Amino acid sequence: MSTAIPSLRRSRDVALLVAKAREGDPRAVARLITLVEENDDSLPEVAAALAPYAGQAQIIGLTGSPGVGKSTTTNELVRALRSAGRRVGVLAVDPSSPFTGGAILGDRVRMQDHATDSGVYIRSMSSRGHLGGLAAATPQAVRVLEGAGCEVVLVETVGVGQAEVEIASLADTTLVLLAPGMGDAIQAVKAGILEVADIFVVNKADRDGADATYHDIQGMIGLGDRDPAQWRPLVLRAVAVKGEGIESVLAAIDKHRKWLIDSDGLLVRRQARAAAEIEAIAFASIRDQIGSLRSGTGLAELAERVAAGETDPYAAAETLLRALGRLTPTF
Amino acid sequence: MSTAIPSLRRSRDVALLVAKAREGDPRAVARLITLVEENDDSLPEVAAALAPYAGQAQIIGLTGSPGVGKSTTTNELVRALRSAGRRVGVLAVDPSSPFTGGAILGDRVRMQDHATDSGVYIRSMSSRGHLGGLAAATPQAVRVLEGAGCEVVLVETVGVGQAEVEIASLADTTLVLLAPGMGDAIQAVKAGILEVADIFVVNKADRDGADATYHDIQGMIGLGDRDPAQWRPLVLRAVAVKGEGIESVLAAIDKHRKWLIDSDGLLVRRQARAAAEIEAIAFASIRDQIGSLRSGTGLAELAERVAAGETDPYAAAETLLRALGRLTPTF
Repeated sequence: MSTAIPSLRRSRDVALLVAKAREGDPRAVARLITLVEENDDSLPEVAAALAPYAGQAQIIGLTGSPGVGKSTTTNELVRALRSAGRRVGVLAVDPSSPFTGGAILGDRVRMQDHATDSGVYIRSMSSRGHLGGLAAATPQAVRVLEGAGCEVVLVETVGVGQAEVEIASLADTTLVLLAPGMGDAIQAVKAGILEVADIFVVNKADRDGADATYHDIQGMIGLGDRDPAQWRPLVLRAVAVKGEGIESVLAAIDKHRKWLIDSDGLLVRRQARAAAEIEAIAFASIRDQIGSLRSGTGLAELAERVAAGETDPYAAAETLLRALGRLTPTF
Repeated sequence: MSTAIPSLRRSRDVALLVAKAREGDPRAVARLITLVEENDDSLPEVAAALAPYAGQAQIIGLTGSPGVGKSTTTNELVRALRSAGRRVGVLAVDPSSPFTGGAILGDRVRMQDHATDSGVYIRSMSSRGHLGGLAAATPQAVRVLEGAGCEVVLVETVGVGQAEVEIASLADTTLVLLAPGMGDAIQAVKAGILEVADIFVVNKADRDGADATYHDIQGMIGLGDRDPAQWRPLVLRAVAVKGEGIESVLAAIDKHRKWLIDSDGLLVRRQARAAAEIEAIAFASIRDQIGSLRSGTGLAELAERVAAGETDPYAAAETLLRALGRLTPTF
């Protein structure tokens, strides 16, 4: 029975934390997001406690290459949303370095503007030890903010690769920021961000080359075969550092949200997000089980044989799958 | 018996294709890479036939943000390697768009320089339908080129995200290209490429800001706690478009290779590559099995319940794993 006591105490802690977060206690919100990031043992309980609040907030993804002005734009969007009296959460997702596991926190200095505003939660996210990485941790952190009563959650990602594109595409509405002189519009296509964008914002629109970037993107949108029932991405200009164009961005977000609701697209997106989240958790658990396979059928031994030319990766994958046998949850 | 005949015929075709590729027939090489890209049913057989040639070539990864001059640098490296009489393969990896599955082929115009040289194979790669995506398809395509007698294989990736970083890190030696005015060196860190780089090349070194980029990178390398037994990345300058600095890059690659062999790091990298490949194939097969789960325990149904707030993603992942039950290979 002694093992049951810490578990029971933890259940009480989780219930208390969620109750405090519901009341808007910022320390409880911060603690819950840390539990999510660190893949704490209590996470399944936290998730169960937060489940009813899923879908309460409007989720806006904001992505773009380094240097396009994502932090400044996020800051200005928060300012405008707060002026309209809306409770806002911000998750700034910094992809961990693949080798060290550390996160580069970047310059969140501008965000200090809102540091004393009780209607805003701002949090840098890293995957740390999260089972399933940021793709699984981010929606769970969004759910914490939804539980805390946020009406809008902004998820800012660096947006330079598949992982970030996946996170951005988990939003209800995805903004892709571009800036003149950051490379041709075709580079946006190469990075796979054209298809996830609901709204393009050409930031730094007062700089040389902004018109060219604007027209390039308009041209690329026009090129594809597009189902008339589909959303046609909007292209806007802004100078976030001066606050210019921010109201137009918010109007475009509202327009997209209205379209989503009218077309049932909101539910489709949210179910896709849930599916990705479930799959990420399940796959991380399978990865755990691969790690604990017995010698000979273990991944390391199979990799040695493939590297030595003694077997091929398909034959090795077959051995691995057979060795895994019956799957059981490890969380 | 009638079902056995096409399978037998296919086995003969695979054996013939591999034999022709071994003789250096470029059409056979191209066909084999297409089979890899398209995840043809014959792929396990192709992999088995190619297994003995694993590890024959020196594999060089070349990555960097859009616009730093990757294609030009690759072209010049090929020219120099050919002058030294070495057989060269080039895989230019263009990440597929996550939604359409299509690949943007980009400008391979400069590569036409080598189009009539029988000692060079050049191929743009896309993941198309490949089980496991480019992370699994690329090493298999490398093995095709090894089978065809390439002594050096250059793998060029856009290098803007985790997936490309993974592919680049599968090389024996990874070059990271930078260019002045493409953003601060810290952006390279954010993208996670600092840790995978064995050699940094500041390309367009005749432009303003090249010195600053050079010293930024030197500074970042100096910052980390580095095991003295580890490789300290080299930082070079080049003007690839004029062919300047290319010989130094090749000398640095040779220096790194010598270090790898002396330190047993080559085997470690190759086993890591094989492990990633096996895991990607196994996970893709599991994904297939998730797709064919019966109603009620299927991912879509579980995602609906999570999106509706009726359950949480951990409980859903547990249901999914139990429903998967015993794993069997699907390839």
